[in-house]
Amino acid sequence: MSVECKRTAPIGVFDSGVGGLTVVREMIRQLPDENIVYFGDTARVPYGSKSQNTIIRFSEQIIRFLKKKQVKAIVIACNTASALALDAVRDEFDVPILGVVTPGARAAVEATRNRKVGVVGTDATVQSGVYTKIIHGMNPEITVIEKACPLFVPLVEEGFKEHKVTQEIIDYYLDSIKKTDIDAMILGCTHYPLLRSKIRAYMGEKIQIVNPAYETAMDLKKLLEERDMVNDGIKEPHSRYEFFVSDAAEKFRHFANTVMPFDISTTNVVNIEEY
Amino acid sequence: MSVECKRTAPIGVFDSGVGGLTVVREMIRQLPDENIVYFGDTARVPYGSKSQNTIIRFSEQIIRFLKKKQVKAIVIACNTASALALDAVRDEFDVPILGVVTPGARAAVEATRNRKVGVVGTDATVQSGVYTKIIHGMNPEITVIEKACPLFVPLVEEGFKEHKVTQEIIDYYLDSIKKTDIDAMILGCTHYPLLRSKIRAYMGEKIQIVNPAYETAMDLKKLLEERDMVNDGIKEPHSRYEFFVSDAAEKFRHFANTVMPFDISTTNVVNIEEY
Repeated sequence: MSVECKRTAPIGVFDSGVGGLTVVREMIRQLPDENIVYFGDTARVPYGSKSQNTIIRFSEQIIRFLKKKQVKAIVIACNTASALALDAVRDEFDVPILGVVTPGARAAVEATRNRKVGVVGTDATVQSGVYTKIIHGMNPEITVIEKACPLFVPLVEEGFKEHKVTQEIIDYYLDSIKKTDIDAMILGCTHYPLLRSKIRAYMGEKIQIVNPAYETAMDLKKLLEERDMVNDGIKEPHSRYEFFVSDAAEKFRHFANTVMPFDISTTNVVNIEEY
Repeated sequence: MSVECKRTAPIGVFDSGVGGLTVVREMIRQLPDENIVYFGDTARVPYGSKSQNTIIRFSEQIIRFLKKKQVKAIVIACNTASALALDAVRDEFDVPILGVVTPGARAAVEATRNRKVGVVGTDATVQSGVYTKIIHGMNPEITVIEKACPLFVPLVEEGFKEHKVTQEIIDYYLDSIKKTDIDAMILGCTHYPLLRSKIRAYMGEKIQIVNPAYETAMDLKKLLEERDMVNDGIKEPHSRYEFFVSDAAEKFRHFANTVMPFDISTTNVVNIEEY
């Protein structure tokens, strides 16, 4: 691929479903000139309760699909896939691949004053212990307290964000972590920023809530600059954003239009198992 | 396949995950001499939020796998797959296939006195309208009120059965259906029998709760008798029950041992996308 080709080529982004759109939203804010191809694995969502082998196989299929779209870089906008599959797929494919875990960990390391950091995420992410490992790689003196909150995803997906049971489940999951003296907490699942205001209200103003999406977009920007891959072409309208899913395109589009800063007109279904 | 072969051949049973074990439990009770091969699609669970095309493709793959196990009949122990895929796969494969919807519908038609029946199930099952269609095929004068309860599955899967939020979500979902004057209600998802006592307590004694598992096992027994396929061989120990999943065998086994009348010693992982 020529350098010119690479510059105008899109960024590939994928997630188990809709959650990764919170990362895309941040990428559009920080990198408005880049083209984006998004894939949401809605036929096999959620990833958070599944095993490492399965998450790696699913990620490989999606990366093969995105490579066919000639992407110049890939962002795994899913904490579970970043935690369980990034190391494996990085060695396997000849395209730069970024996850959300390292950027999120770095932001928390910079945010904490008392060296006590909390992490909330899916079962799979928390059981992997990847956030603790990466934070300790940056500063071994930081104490990391991780907590799985598996019901947050279905509550968001089923539209229970404003229902009182969501507050009760937030209280239930976060009670033990609130009783520690952490001063920074990573939202280690791309769905959780959609509950941010409620989580912030429960945890209190003294705890800095870290959303890895912002830092991930920053890292991507840096990577594109370092490799001379920034798109300096003319900015085009929103058709430059392409959305693919493995199932239920209409439901995805409806949800996406509540998260994104503009309306998505079309979403295409891909049989991802063929890749 | 010879008649003798068919008699001792196992029954294939599948579900999106663990829910179908409530049907297996009933089959073991009513057909203790039959061998069973169970497949739980734990890599792609849940089905209830996915589209018909996807559910049909997943069901076809599983049936191809079960046919390799030489099953003499197949039970789709998943309401969503029974509602969305049964008609398609019945025409496609040369093995008798039973779903749980028709047996459940018949039980409700027999149970109701005032001709008003409720159905609770996943989004996909309720949106398909299949319960209403089948009940009306049996008796067009019955009024059917369907209600989707998508959070019941994650609440059961995440071990929140005894948590107070489960009661609140039961109240939330069932409030409108309780205010009608139905006198029978179908638990139209194989996970829901695991919440049966709470649902019964909320709905009250006047409403008969129908669990399609019982009727499905009865239908299977009848089918085996009609086709002269009853296993009249010697009863063997529990090794005659084989369990396969597409992911996370250990988690499945742990859950299964809380549902089944005996301990499952091994569960094997199958890459179902290859079928």
